[in-house]
Amino acid sequence: MSHVEFQTSPDGYRHWRVGIEGPVATLTMDVDEQGGLVPGYELKLNSYDLGVDIELYDAVQRLRFEHPEVKAVVVTSGKEKIFCAGANIRMLAASEHSWKVNFCKFTNETRGGIEDATENSGQTYLAALGGTASGGGYELALACDKILLIDDRSSVVSLPELPLLGVLPGTGGLTRVVDKRHVRRDLADYFATKSEGIGGKKAAAWKLVDEVVPRVRWQEVVAERARGYAESARRLPGGPGIELTPLHKDRTATASTVHIKYVHVTAAIDRDRAVAEITVTGPPAAVSPAAVSPATVSPAAVSPATVSPATVSPAAVSPATGPASMDDVREQGAAFWSLAVARELDDLILDLRTNEPEIGTWLIRTAGDPARVLAYDDLLLAYYDSDWLAREIVLYWKRTLKRLDVTSRSLIALIEPGSCFAGSLLELALAADRSFMLFGLFEDGEPGAAPATVTAGPMNFGPLPMGNGLTRLQTRFLGDDDALVTVDRLQGRALLAQAALERGLVTFAPTTSTGPTRCGSRSKNARRSLPTR
Amino acid sequence: MSHVEFQTSPDGYRHWRVGIEGPVATLTMDVDEQGGLVPGYELKLNSYDLGVDIELYDAVQRLRFEHPEVKAVVVTSGKEKIFCAGANIRMLAASEHSWKVNFCKFTNETRGGIEDATENSGQTYLAALGGTASGGGYELALACDKILLIDDRSSVVSLPELPLLGVLPGTGGLTRVVDKRHVRRDLADYFATKSEGIGGKKAAAWKLVDEVVPRVRWQEVVAERARGYAESARRLPGGPGIELTPLHKDRTATASTVHIKYVHVTAAIDRDRAVAEITVTGPPAAVSPAAVSPATVSPAAVSPATVSPATVSPAAVSPATGPASMDDVREQGAAFWSLAVARELDDLILDLRTNEPEIGTWLIRTAGDPARVLAYDDLLLAYYDSDWLAREIVLYWKRTLKRLDVTSRSLIALIEPGSCFAGSLLELALAADRSFMLFGLFEDGEPGAAPATVTAGPMNFGPLPMGNGLTRLQTRFLGDDDALVTVDRLQGRALLAQAALERGLVTFAPTTSTGPTRCGSRSKNARRSLPTR
Repeated sequence: MSHVEFQTSPDGYRHWRVGIEGPVATLTMDVDEQGGLVPGYELKLNSYDLGVDIELYDAVQRLRFEHPEVKAVVVTSGKEKIFCAGANIRMLAASEHSWKVNFCKFTNETRGGIEDATENSGQTYLAALGGTASGGGYELALACDKILLIDDRSSVVSLPELPLLGVLPGTGGLTRVVDKRHVRRDLADYFATKSEGIGGKKAAAWKLVDEVVPRVRWQEVVAERARGYAESARRLPGGPGIELTPLHKDRTATASTVHIKYVHVTAAIDRDRAVAEITVTGPPAAVSPAAVSPATVSPAAVSPATVSPATVSPAAVSPATGPASMDDVREQGAAFWSLAVARELDDLILDLRTNEPEIGTWLIRTAGDPARVLAYDDLLLAYYDSDWLAREIVLYWKRTLKRLDVTSRSLIALIEPGSCFAGSLLELALAADRSFMLFGLFEDGEPGAAPATVTAGPMNFGPLPMGNGLTRLQTRFLGDDDALVTVDRLQGRALLAQAALERGLVTFAPTTSTGPTRCGSRSKNARRSLPTR
Repeated sequence: MSHVEFQTSPDGYRHWRVGIEGPVATLTMDVDEQGGLVPGYELKLNSYDLGVDIELYDAVQRLRFEHPEVKAVVVTSGKEKIFCAGANIRMLAASEHSWKVNFCKFTNETRGGIEDATENSGQTYLAALGGTASGGGYELALACDKILLIDDRSSVVSLPELPLLGVLPGTGGLTRVVDKRHVRRDLADYFATKSEGIGGKKAAAWKLVDEVVPRVRWQEVVAERARGYAESARRLPGGPGIELTPLHKDRTATASTVHIKYVHVTAAIDRDRAVAEITVTGPPAAVSPAAVSPATVSPAAVSPATVSPATVSPAAVSPATGPASMDDVREQGAAFWSLAVARELDDLILDLRTNEPEIGTWLIRTAGDPARVLAYDDLLLAYYDSDWLAREIVLYWKRTLKRLDVTSRSLIALIEPGSCFAGSLLELALAADRSFMLFGLFEDGEPGAAPATVTAGPMNFGPLPMGNGLTRLQTRFLGDDDALVTVDRLQGRALLAQAALERGLVTFAPTTSTGPTRCGSRSKNARRSLPTR
């Protein structure tokens, strides 16, 4: 399989058109039959492959960040008589199992993002089915808040996977029909065995669609409904959109290694060991956009002296450690650290999942000042309910971390001296399968370095829920409310290894090879710095 | 695979011993290595196959019905140094996929039954691991409310499936470790990759077991804990146990057909059509045990005149239609209709699942008087909170219907004249994937026959939840509370096809081939008999 990049922009779309008229955007699916991501199949009948879905994902993201004025999004088709025939069957037949799993996962995540925009961003999605929507095409419609179907005696919705292919509609079809749209299960069972689909009034009576509209009134009713949703949608104020400028991404590969370098995130892939070492760098010291460059935020440039081994309280965070206001954030735009890191992580996760399926272990490190991470978090949360951009950035972190949760790799967080696992970045450790926090210091570490700490903050207690609706800490301490309360009380305090281990925030706290003596002395230090309970 | 029967009794056990001392029962697993259900493997190290689990299921059921005095059940091993090594690997390796799925499903259901006994019957299960419990052995322990592990420097618990076999611990291992016992996920992840397992204090600290006990105090502490659980368990009064006498089961087979006949349940299997036609007969007219014989309850003996096409209200049920008291029930014992039907259905489901994997469609009919079904239901529910036997019978119905829910066959309910889909038997139609209710009468039906009805009753509104914790009606009308309330208000009323269809209780209401005229007139009748809303 050839290399796949997930970065694109409307100028480069081959399969979608984006039209914006005031508060209503229209995403028109008009798949280029010859535009398959890999050779060997034609994308007939508006069927899709990963390339088509990458464009859809990009469009949904840009609507959120670049077009805050948009409050309703109509998803429709540029083809006559057909909305979308779903995932391309020939593409699926020619694909390896791992490719199909990865493809469906991404497709599901994009549909989840559409629902997230409807629910949390005040951009309500409306599927306007001017023709038949079958299989994944109907599943795309199911991700929208409302479904309109043209009533022309031929257009239907269908999930023909079972009768035609003997597989289940796996991109949310069965679950959304039953659990989201509340189609009665016996009717859903019948529907899923009826390859010719269901249209007209029965489709509405069974709740498969919300409304069927005669052909003569189609355009008018779709526009009317979109305006209605736009009027009732609640989108926060906060100024015009910001442009999602192209990521700075540098990829160099040899036979056995790949290095991917963004501004704040790097990944070193060792194919022989099947390991990717990922490092996320914390916010830069200065706030002006000019200061956000790789040179100022490389791990070496972070003085260990800025990482206090003792308690770090939020009150101690000076304005200099974070942006002063949302105006600063808007000025920095896509270069603003929190947004830039979310984009870089998002792209890296998708890149590694798709292009490096054999790299089974991801080691995740951070480097920087924990206090600064918390300061950035605090600003976003202070404006979460009043500024669309603050909210969008937090929602993007939520989705990116959820992507990490369902990434089928062994995720190991390595918490080492100079790291900044605090608040939003602590979520990376909590999303990992296991975490190892160095007890003490590396033998060959920098002189004067301070041992690693972890710091919980408000981001760990609500704004970034997992797919189960719980925070990662709630999930971690399921059934152990005391442990959760204890960590809650320790918000803003930098915890050394011993304390983090005792509080259940890390899996293991190994010592280095320097043996028990030095670690023993560190252990005493650790105990001295523990807050009293 | 040879024919498997699920009926057994302690006299015939090869792998388990049951000991009862007052309120404490001990189930000792002592697997006969040479006692495999099919040739080709030895059941070493207390490993199990379906035959071992059939005995466990039987023992759990008998403790509930035959030994209401038992309030704590100790599950332990008769082997030195080993509790149970889980499902036999050679057996699994030699089995077809469908056999393994069916085996694991039954095993899961038995473990679910152990949890149901602990939660709802006041029989608390305690796993006493006097040796290592690995894989399915640990999963059996996980089904118990408490786990004690001997602390002897060698006994451990483990889920070695992943490192040793590359499969997940699928009989509840991962889910119960995390969601039931609340082992922290990162620790559970580590545990599931550590084939050598975890014992001693760490097993308790990580919540993998509840208590580790030194060898010298083992017997004493196990007995002490069992007594403690027995003292705190709440088991309802209601007299001594009743014997689960052997089922009357007659099985006759030809090359293409099988007929299975119990007292109240029959199944006619047509291998050419891959269909099983199942008929459940309603309660007999008389209440004395002598009257409960196949002759009096065969479908032909049920006069259609007893099925009123008009409304049947609970108040109209005379004492003669049901047992007068729980004393009557106790006198009838295992022959009591509600219990006998649950046992027969349970056995039939297991038989067909295991012995007839190619029979993909099960057609389910009932025959009898709906009012009588409701009368039997009412008696059980009236004593649900005060009589252990009434409660056990309802709980058994709950488990049997859940078994039906997860049976991977197409289940079709056929609701025809002379049927009694009311209350507990209506659940059969609600558990089906689809239901067809005849609109009108069969052309060749009996003269004077009345059309089919369905009747909701108290059993449909709480006592028989599905695995999702909701009733079948709540699940059916998910998100449509009005529909649920409407059906609730119609409790006790016999609804004809048109009304049942309008209320969403049946999937389809086809007419017979006599055409629309006659069905049209039936339709008017149906409307006349509808209660006003």
